[in-house]
Amino acid sequence: MPVMAINQRAQAYFEDLRDRICAALERLDGATFERTRWDRQGGGGGEMALMRGGVFEKVGVNVSAVRGTLPERLRAQVPGAGSGAFRACGISLVAHPRSPMVPAVHLNLRRIETTAGWFGGGTDLTPYEPFAEDTALFHQRLKACCDRHDATYHPRFSAWCDEYFFLRHRNEPRGAGGIFFDNLDSGDVEADFAFVRDVGETFLATYPEIVSGRKELPFTPAQRDAQLVRRGRYVEFNLLYDRGTTFGLETGGNVEAILMSLPPEVRWP
Amino acid sequence: MPVMAINQRAQAYFEDLRDRICAALERLDGATFERTRWDRQGGGGGEMALMRGGVFEKVGVNVSAVRGTLPERLRAQVPGAGSGAFRACGISLVAHPRSPMVPAVHLNLRRIETTAGWFGGGTDLTPYEPFAEDTALFHQRLKACCDRHDATYHPRFSAWCDEYFFLRHRNEPRGAGGIFFDNLDSGDVEADFAFVRDVGETFLATYPEIVSGRKELPFTPAQRDAQLVRRGRYVEFNLLYDRGTTFGLETGGNVEAILMSLPPEVRWP
Repeated sequence: MPVMAINQRAQAYFEDLRDRICAALERLDGATFERTRWDRQGGGGGEMALMRGGVFEKVGVNVSAVRGTLPERLRAQVPGAGSGAFRACGISLVAHPRSPMVPAVHLNLRRIETTAGWFGGGTDLTPYEPFAEDTALFHQRLKACCDRHDATYHPRFSAWCDEYFFLRHRNEPRGAGGIFFDNLDSGDVEADFAFVRDVGETFLATYPEIVSGRKELPFTPAQRDAQLVRRGRYVEFNLLYDRGTTFGLETGGNVEAILMSLPPEVRWP
Repeated sequence: MPVMAINQRAQAYFEDLRDRICAALERLDGATFERTRWDRQGGGGGEMALMRGGVFEKVGVNVSAVRGTLPERLRAQVPGAGSGAFRACGISLVAHPRSPMVPAVHLNLRRIETTAGWFGGGTDLTPYEPFAEDTALFHQRLKACCDRHDATYHPRFSAWCDEYFFLRHRNEPRGAGGIFFDNLDSGDVEADFAFVRDVGETFLATYPEIVSGRKELPFTPAQRDAQLVRRGRYVEFNLLYDRGTTFGLETGGNVEAILMSLPPEVRWP
């Protein structure tokens, strides 16, 4: 039996992880995800899964596998870009809970191949009403996950997260951090893939647990209002700085899938 | 008596125009503008005027006069940037009416001086519920204004507006157009300044008239909802594409003043 290429195995894992995350979030909420397939002009496509429920005002999970040629102006930034041929697959999730007591979260895992190949991704938490024990649990689980693979990962990837999700124009972080990594190519692709899967499993074991502990708490209109204002920072980050967003829009990605991460309701007072 | 330099006269005009626009919008609304002065690290500052009323959910008018040194990476884009010294003054207005029957509007007029000097600006309308006669009036008044100065202005500046306020990622225009111009330096600075003043006066004679005719109309929750979604396009444009926004944020402008243009309430459903 032929061995599946790493990008196919990554894609299969991302789809399976998506199914299990969606099932877990549906159990927390009671609503169901709606799925929409989309094709990309230039090669490949993906599937958006979107749920609007009582707990999750809007949560989107997008799995995509695309291939094509990188626009020339982007090649300088991409390792091994050569003549521009690339393929990429990934999972991307953003959850915007209705209650300000429940933190928003972002997860992304991806495999990119040019003449080189690497993994990237991460997950980070954006609390509105801060519960120190939620943030501590999130960081602690991610640290344990990283430490199972490489003792240098957590210090490096948590610092990278803090640096990446920083709003320079406001001189403030977007949220409470987590981990972020890119160009992960240790030389042992199986070890790298195992780490990426562990991040996925750690997310699945942790975020629903945090939501479960907070989703029934009462909140005030003032707390809700503060959440809507704070969500503006999420929009500012995604449209001003996020490389995934601008890369996706510039390479002809699916607009609805790329901007699915934007919060359902926002205020700039 | 010494003759005032053109940049000082432009600044004085922008402040006077601001006062007259604020008075006109206050008469339409019944609420009042609150003004906040701000200083810019590196030189100069400005004054934000913000009104939240019954007719205008949020309307901001910012007048600023700044000077300093352009960051090196921006100099290639700026005529006569030389060693980077610049000064700039301008007026910027964005009005987000509460009713979807009343169009949003944007106005900007500016004078910039490096070793060269030029005017820029424009005004454009973003209707939610389209009234053909409002859009027609807006374009007709701007065309008459342009034609008083140069027969080539209106065709050039209205096409420039359509091109500038275009959301490439959605392949759609932001609104119904208007005029946009930059690097205006005909060789006759008095003529250029007279044109800029005429744009200001045309705005003041036209937009309040449009608001006045629509502000009492009833509207449905579905029309309000469509307005909140459509406002998302405004945010996407300003954060993804607008050179004024990114230039301001990169040159250490006042964040609140720059992002004052963002709508008060937005939905991405």
